[in-house]
Amino acid sequence: MPDLMEIAALRAAGKEAWIRAAVAACVDGVVEKASKDGKPYLEVQLCDARDRFALRVWSDNGQYDAAQSLAAGACLRLEGEFHVHPVFGLESRKWSFRALEGEEKENFLAGPADMRARQEEDYHFIEAEVAGLKDPRLRALAASYLEKFGPRFRRTAAARFFHHARRGGLVEHTAQMMRYAAAICTANASLHRDLMVSGVLFHDCGKLWENCVEEGGFGMPFDERGELLGHINIGIELVNSLWKSLPLDEWKEVAPDSEDVRLHLLHLIASHHGELEFGSPVQPKTPEAIALHYIDNLDAKLEMLARGYETSAPVAGRIYDKVRPLNVRLVAPLSVGA
Amino acid sequence: MPDLMEIAALRAAGKEAWIRAAVAACVDGVVEKASKDGKPYLEVQLCDARDRFALRVWSDNGQYDAAQSLAAGACLRLEGEFHVHPVFGLESRKWSFRALEGEEKENFLAGPADMRARQEEDYHFIEAEVAGLKDPRLRALAASYLEKFGPRFRRTAAARFFHHARRGGLVEHTAQMMRYAAAICTANASLHRDLMVSGVLFHDCGKLWENCVEEGGFGMPFDERGELLGHINIGIELVNSLWKSLPLDEWKEVAPDSEDVRLHLLHLIASHHGELEFGSPVQPKTPEAIALHYIDNLDAKLEMLARGYETSAPVAGRIYDKVRPLNVRLVAPLSVGA
Amino acid sequence: MPDLMEIAALRAAGKEAWIRAAVAACVDGVVEKASKDGKPYLEVQLCDARDRFALRVWSDNGQYDAAQSLAAGACLRLEGEFHVHPVFGLESRKWSFRALEGEEKENFLAGPADMRARQEEDYHFIEAEVAGLKDPRLRALAASYLEKFGPRFRRTAAARFFHHARRGGLVEHTAQMMRYAAAICTANASLHRDLMVSGVLFHDCGKLWENCVEEGGFGMPFDERGELLGHINIGIELVNSLWKSLPLDEWKEVAPDSEDVRLHLLHLIASHHGELEFGSPVQPKTPEAIALHYIDNLDAKLEMLARGYETSAPVAGRIYDKVRPLNVRLVAPLSVGA
Amino acid sequence: MPDLMEIAALRAAGKEAWIRAAVAACVDGVVEKASKDGKPYLEVQLCDARDRFALRVWSDNGQYDAAQSLAAGACLRLEGEFHVHPVFGLESRKWSFRALEGEEKENFLAGPADMRARQEEDYHFIEAEVAGLKDPRLRALAASYLEKFGPRFRRTAAARFFHHARRGGLVEHTAQMMRYAAAICTANASLHRDLMVSGVLFHDCGKLWENCVEEGGFGMPFDERGELLGHINIGIELVNSLWKSLPLDEWKEVAPDSEDVRLHLLHLIASHHGELEFGSPVQPKTPEAIALHYIDNLDAKLEMLARGYETSAPVAGRIYDKVRPLNVRLVAPLSVGA
Amino acid sequence: MPDLMEIAALRAAGKEAWIRAAVAACVDGVVEKASKDGKPYLEVQLCDARDRFALRVWSDNGQYDAAQSLAAGACLRLEGEFHVHPVFGLESRKWSFRALEGEEKENFLAGPADMRARQEEDYHFIEAEVAGLKDPRLRALAASYLEKFGPRFRRTAAARFFHHARRGGLVEHTAQMMRYAAAICTANASLHRDLMVSGVLFHDCGKLWENCVEEGGFGMPFDERGELLGHINIGIELVNSLWKSLPLDEWKEVAPDSEDVRLHLLHLIASHHGELEFGSPVQPKTPEAIALHYIDNLDAKLEMLARGYETSAPVAGRIYDKVRPLNVRLVAPLSVGA
Amino acid sequence: MPDLMEIAALRAAGKEAWIRAAVAACVDGVVEKASKDGKPYLEVQLCDARDRFALRVWSDNGQYDAAQSLAAGACLRLEGEFHVHPVFGLESRKWSFRALEGEEKENFLAGPADMRARQEEDYHFIEAEVAGLKDPRLRALAASYLEKFGPRFRRTAAARFFHHARRGGLVEHTAQMMRYAAAICTANASLHRDLMVSGVLFHDCGKLWENCVEEGGFGMPFDERGELLGHINIGIELVNSLWKSLPLDEWKEVAPDSEDVRLHLLHLIASHHGELEFGSPVQPKTPEAIALHYIDNLDAKLEMLARGYETSAPVAGRIYDKVRPLNVRLVAPLSVGA
Repeated sequence: MPDLMEIAALRAAGKEAWIRAAVAACVDGVVEKASKDGKPYLEVQLCDARDRFALRVWSDNGQYDAAQSLAAGACLRLEGEFHVHPVFGLESRKWSFRALEGEEKENFLAGPADMRARQEEDYHFIEAEVAGLKDPRLRALAASYLEKFGPRFRRTAAARFFHHARRGGLVEHTAQMMRYAAAICTANASLHRDLMVSGVLFHDCGKLWENCVEEGGFGMPFDERGELLGHINIGIELVNSLWKSLPLDEWKEVAPDSEDVRLHLLHLIASHHGELEFGSPVQPKTPEAIALHYIDNLDAKLEMLARGYETSAPVAGRIYDKVRPLNVRLVAPLSVGA
Repeated sequence: MPDLMEIAALRAAGKEAWIRAAVAACVDGVVEKASKDGKPYLEVQLCDARDRFALRVWSDNGQYDAAQSLAAGACLRLEGEFHVHPVFGLESRKWSFRALEGEEKENFLAGPADMRARQEEDYHFIEAEVAGLKDPRLRALAASYLEKFGPRFRRTAAARFFHHARRGGLVEHTAQMMRYAAAICTANASLHRDLMVSGVLFHDCGKLWENCVEEGGFGMPFDERGELLGHINIGIELVNSLWKSLPLDEWKEVAPDSEDVRLHLLHLIASHHGELEFGSPVQPKTPEAIALHYIDNLDAKLEMLARGYETSAPVAGRIYDKVRPLNVRLVAPLSVGA
Repeated sequence: MPDLMEIAALRAAGKEAWIRAAVAACVDGVVEKASKDGKPYLEVQLCDARDRFALRVWSDNGQYDAAQSLAAGACLRLEGEFHVHPVFGLESRKWSFRALEGEEKENFLAGPADMRARQEEDYHFIEAEVAGLKDPRLRALAASYLEKFGPRFRRTAAARFFHHARRGGLVEHTAQMMRYAAAICTANASLHRDLMVSGVLFHDCGKLWENCVEEGGFGMPFDERGELLGHINIGIELVNSLWKSLPLDEWKEVAPDSEDVRLHLLHLIASHHGELEFGSPVQPKTPEAIALHYIDNLDAKLEMLARGYETSAPVAGRIYDKVRPLNVRLVAPLSVGA
Repeated sequence: MPDLMEIAALRAAGKEAWIRAAVAACVDGVVEKASKDGKPYLEVQLCDARDRFALRVWSDNGQYDAAQSLAAGACLRLEGEFHVHPVFGLESRKWSFRALEGEEKENFLAGPADMRARQEEDYHFIEAEVAGLKDPRLRALAASYLEKFGPRFRRTAAARFFHHARRGGLVEHTAQMMRYAAAICTANASLHRDLMVSGVLFHDCGKLWENCVEEGGFGMPFDERGELLGHINIGIELVNSLWKSLPLDEWKEVAPDSEDVRLHLLHLIASHHGELEFGSPVQPKTPEAIALHYIDNLDAKLEMLARGYETSAPVAGRIYDKVRPLNVRLVAPLSVGA
Repeated sequence: MPDLMEIAALRAAGKEAWIRAAVAACVDGVVEKASKDGKPYLEVQLCDARDRFALRVWSDNGQYDAAQSLAAGACLRLEGEFHVHPVFGLESRKWSFRALEGEEKENFLAGPADMRARQEEDYHFIEAEVAGLKDPRLRALAASYLEKFGPRFRRTAAARFFHHARRGGLVEHTAQMMRYAAAICTANASLHRDLMVSGVLFHDCGKLWENCVEEGGFGMPFDERGELLGHINIGIELVNSLWKSLPLDEWKEVAPDSEDVRLHLLHLIASHHGELEFGSPVQPKTPEAIALHYIDNLDAKLEMLARGYETSAPVAGRIYDKVRPLNVRLVAPLSVGA
Repeated sequence: MPDLMEIAALRAAGKEAWIRAAVAACVDGVVEKASKDGKPYLEVQLCDARDRFALRVWSDNGQYDAAQSLAAGACLRLEGEFHVHPVFGLESRKWSFRALEGEEKENFLAGPADMRARQEEDYHFIEAEVAGLKDPRLRALAASYLEKFGPRFRRTAAARFFHHARRGGLVEHTAQMMRYAAAICTANASLHRDLMVSGVLFHDCGKLWENCVEEGGFGMPFDERGELLGHINIGIELVNSLWKSLPLDEWKEVAPDSEDVRLHLLHLIASHHGELEFGSPVQPKTPEAIALHYIDNLDAKLEMLARGYETSAPVAGRIYDKVRPLNVRLVAPLSVGA
């Protein structure tokens, strides 16, 4: 057992009995509460890269005052006994906490190793795809995006709820969509591969402001730009801004015309929700726009299903209760034969 | 009777009998047709600022070849006898045509005097409102817009169909919305008058590319930018581009923050359709965005009704047949008592 | 500090510490409850013109029996110590109550002075607009409405939830809509001002039965007529009934025809929800019907926003959480520069 | 063959060859037209109770002037040779016409005997059901309706298009709905039979103004009341007006309360479209309102199917092309075995 | 008072005071809970054929362990003191329980006598209607269905929620729909009575898998077939499977063709939801399909209303709060006069 | 130039001038028409595998009688002079026709070589994929499908309108979907490849009855089964029927359970339209069902775009007019650089 466990790992290990362990977690808020008969307690919301739980601190606990003064964003080492109550979930006793420090904190904020490794791999895959773009404008644009916004990109979630709603989720979503895009271009050679790959890279880039996870923690604050404009408009503004820094004069002779490339790429961003009622100001009008829209939906929906199988309560046998925003009960996938 | 009549005036004058007159018109296209028994003829589509009709040229007419070679955009002086047939509409005989020239052509392309006068007045009203803006950022932005794009603005229609779908229609729509905005700000002092007026000015500015009437004529060609991005995105790009040229450093001390002003103005553009399904990527989230949305709808709908009363066939007494896109029969307004 | 505070004022004053005060409130219901461990208590729902809170009375309190026998509608003077708990809201201790009496009760039921003053002003504005109607039929109709139903009108809310959902809310909503209507008629002289003003006055008059606040209190009981017919039908029935009492013979020579005036006014009532799916049996078919519909929406939506800024929790900076029935997070309005 | 045939009968008889016959028809309008090569002709629209066709009168026909001066509503005896062309439909030659007169005209306007007989039977059934009402208020109300508006009721169509869109169609629709209502009350004794029968009688009574066929002909002019208020509101106004003439004092002791009876009946009228989006200002909230709504739909849809089987072109075997407003191809009903 | 009461009867009898009684109930689940201050208790969910309540067992109760080990499906005799608390509902004290045994248990699982009697009567009515079918194919098919699946049919609910959601509910729904079908065929002789009756019998037969109540209890487990295919497809598969066992060769001469009979019956099953968005893969295209759809809706909606009047809280006088899935407040039906 | 041209080739060759050629075509119907001035003519609808045009035969043409007696389905060799009129489209003169015979006819009915080659290749690809299925049940099922219904499958269109609406279109659609499915399974190894491939093969197999092109021609008659049940239900019935012939006993030990395999495959058929309102009786509930739905849409939409670029009129530059059922103007794809 590692020195500092993840919340999800604690949850798995504490199913049968109380275990002694230390967990790393970030404070997401402290709220004063009280039981109906007036006994006050604090509810300390704790989260890490993948999970969250609430630590209850009763007023007669010697650490009440320390807990009360915890600031959102504080990173803690919480050591104690833990157990998963069938009803109340993860419970704790005989605990004490202190601030995470130095490398310990850095490691924690970096996220769990497997997630980090997957996102690292996904990010390298994205970099390789960008490096492989043949169109010089798109390659330069994508490279400048990774260069200037790479770290922010790697912190961003693909959504606030529902799918890839975690730090780095946008990298995972983007990489998997690129895999689908590459595969589909193999099956249909008439699609413009460079445009598809670039469209995947930039389609949600406005989320770097709408769904960005803060640097020193795991919170995802709301952003006025996101509220007033939406990620599609922010994404278009970002591409336009990067575009202006490109040495376009060098490519005056390159076909097709640079302005055409810019417009088609912006169209992919603008239309990727597929229908006006889902927030796209224009509907897809080119083959790549159609394909991007379906690839986006495919990956989002498959992630929702994967999450649903993990988190949704079975209502019978291989049937799982509805998970939002899917409005259906799920059925376990058909197993592959031996 | 003026030397060169408008098509609409011809229509009014020729209701009872054949009249001799000269009309100015612009060629919108020439199509070869034939009657069922094989007799070929040309249909020359002619339009001016407010109306249109089709001139039929049979193959045995000496001017057939000349008519066949007419290019779209050609401006003609057509003299002959005209009559409004109860079924076939405006008909002509004993006609001849020649190209409009010099001042004659200029006057024609300028549009009819009353429309010109109204649009002139509307444009001056807009200029005065812009000059009266108190916020220095919004005043400078609006002034630079009129300066750089004034002529294009004055040629643009407010829509391709349905309302203010004529050269200069956007000026009329914008001016009337400004009158409503000013009036509503009087009735509700909490609304930000400068933001409202600027929002009205810029809300449809993307239509300068989507619905622009060509300079030497009355056609409104489709535009790839309009198709791929839509007028909301083009408008946002335009404002962002003008904004970058403003001397923002001069106003660092002016409250509210310039970036806030920019975001709120862009929000008005982005949300003015009111609902996602009508093409707004975000819904209105501020009082001014709500108000702008209703003022836009109010003016558009009242113009549709006004047009409907003029053009829709009465189905009985004071009831008019449905006109698109209104899905109702209209009823004549209640007359005002003496 | 006044002898008898409003609930909202108490809430503001008790934010930092316990204060001693007396509050006037009306009983909206008494429910027996118990904590999970069986300790019984009463929850006395108390309300005034603008706010509400729950007084908890434990079974060992000497006033338990008196509290238990409180009838809905009873008006109380509650004196004690009050404090706003960050979680539980307005709490009280060491309190005692007695029935409000005489002028004290009258004042309380009249509502707070500022609200009373605003509604008084609004009502006078409505009376003045009615007196200024030029059409003798509409003026007589509106005057007879105010005469016969004025007090009921002044008690009625504009809605059960969501906007102007308070005693006299309909007067506020009606007056503000009249201001918008007057303003818009200035900006567009072709609208029939008398019809607009009368349409505003009567558009929600059916709510005098659907959303009427009871005379001796602040409750808004459901009404079978409202349920079975809806306020649009009740409003039409009311106008028809008042119309029959008018001396129509006197105005036989007045243009337009009285029957036309009646039908157009009824059309404004019938169509003011704008679309069938929002409960209008017919869609707007005249300019005034269109304008009334948008003015109604404008005022309702702006009130929802105003209320949202007051009551909705900020989720970040100047962003407010969604409030029903608006399905969006709100953003604080742009401040006006110094 | 009768002296004066119906249009539908002519259509059946003239399928194989030209026949000589006389037909009675009413002029619905005369429009000047011309063939593409300029030969003018008149199109005289002729209709009777069930069908319609167009008589073409070329300008060289000696009866051209007489035809041109025919007024809408004129009733004619048209004698000549008739034939059904596979493409052009009912054609005529060697014809002459004169005005119908006296009894001849009366018979024609009375409609064909079978339709008259069916509607007569239906009307007697309605009268019998009304006479059998047990509740004295509903019986008196229904009787006064038949007494005052019987002839107008018998002229009214159930709709302008789509179902029972013919003179007397409302009587047929009402009678058949009464049969369904009576049957359903037998299968479910908890339904209030008197209320159901009265609800059926009055649910569409507003159509006496919205879809009334004119007295001396077969036209169905639009009506401003119908446009501005809709048939539901007109129906409610009608019932309210009849209700005020009832001797309600006589029934003060009769349970349930008269006002309850009125409200429940009005609710049936108001809610019979079932959903707001279909024009009901309130949804059904009582068992009878639910039942009435389904009975109305059942009869309307079955009539649309019956008409579809008659008029829609088979696209294959027993499959019929879509008919408006049903959005499906029809399949012939299963035949009943020998 | 019977030895073993129903839960609903207990609820009625215990409204005023604590009564001593014995109730029969089936365990639907046992969940460990705890009050906020940590006192643990068990919540034993108990149900019978028509009702359900929760028995709370505190940890210091001597029967805690026995309660904790109760398996879902266990049938109990619970004796003790019961009372309906105005807030907490049915409460119990001084209770003890033991397993139901032998005839006692059989009776309990058989359901209450009145429900049993009604369902018995309904089932006999269905059998009689089946026996009365004239078409030999439909009669044989229906008979084989009752023979092979009768017991399963009698256990099945008509829905999981909302209407007839109880054991045997499908029999009640089917029988009442048959009564409506028979009545409507009397009022409209052109409908194919045999097809209507068979369509009613089979329209929901797929629910024998989707909504079947388990044999030894009152639970309604989810079923993978229901989830993956839906009851319409399961029903079609069932009819196809029964059809293959019919001696079709015997009826080769019987009109109409057997294959036509099968297709029309399947069409009634496939289309009975009326619209695609309600889960019918095809819309109704024959008169019987239309009629079946409305009869189904009529019975379902009237049951929802009946249940709503019983269970929904009055919000005022004769007005009841909304019940799902009806989105309206209900109004009490008009009472029938003496 | 081949001896017998395709209609589409004729269209391309005759753009500039009249050419002499022979074309093979199938009669789809003969309708009697007449010009407005009464001159009768026949319109002979002619079609081949990819295109269609109308041959006009005037009554004074010596071949009028022969043309009039042409039966639908007759295959002709039409030789003459052809020209594409800018308005009237493909016109012909100096023509004569005779029936196609022997090999000539066979070749014609086989379709053009390139389409035949592509469909041949597509079909072989499908066969190879089927042969490569690892699950013995799915492999046997798919093989028996190709064996029993291969020829019918190869004649079937993927839809009646809109996409792949041609003989063999279902083979093209199925093969391309299989390519996408294989590609996506490569990019996402967790998807069940066998199930995906089988789901693609069978998802539209019900169209073998709904959209089957007749054997001796190019017509696509409507089918009562298709109308009454829809292709999803027919497809399920087909799979169930093939399934019953499989030697399931042999595979009792093979995991997963055969019944699970059947249900999951049927779920893919049942849910492939994605939403109830598009005709799926259940929504997708497994990863493969989600993926199949998007692959289906992707291929259908891309084919609609491809067809749109070919057939839709450009409205400006690279912008194409709307094509049904896509509700947008198309923009030409971005060209790939040199």
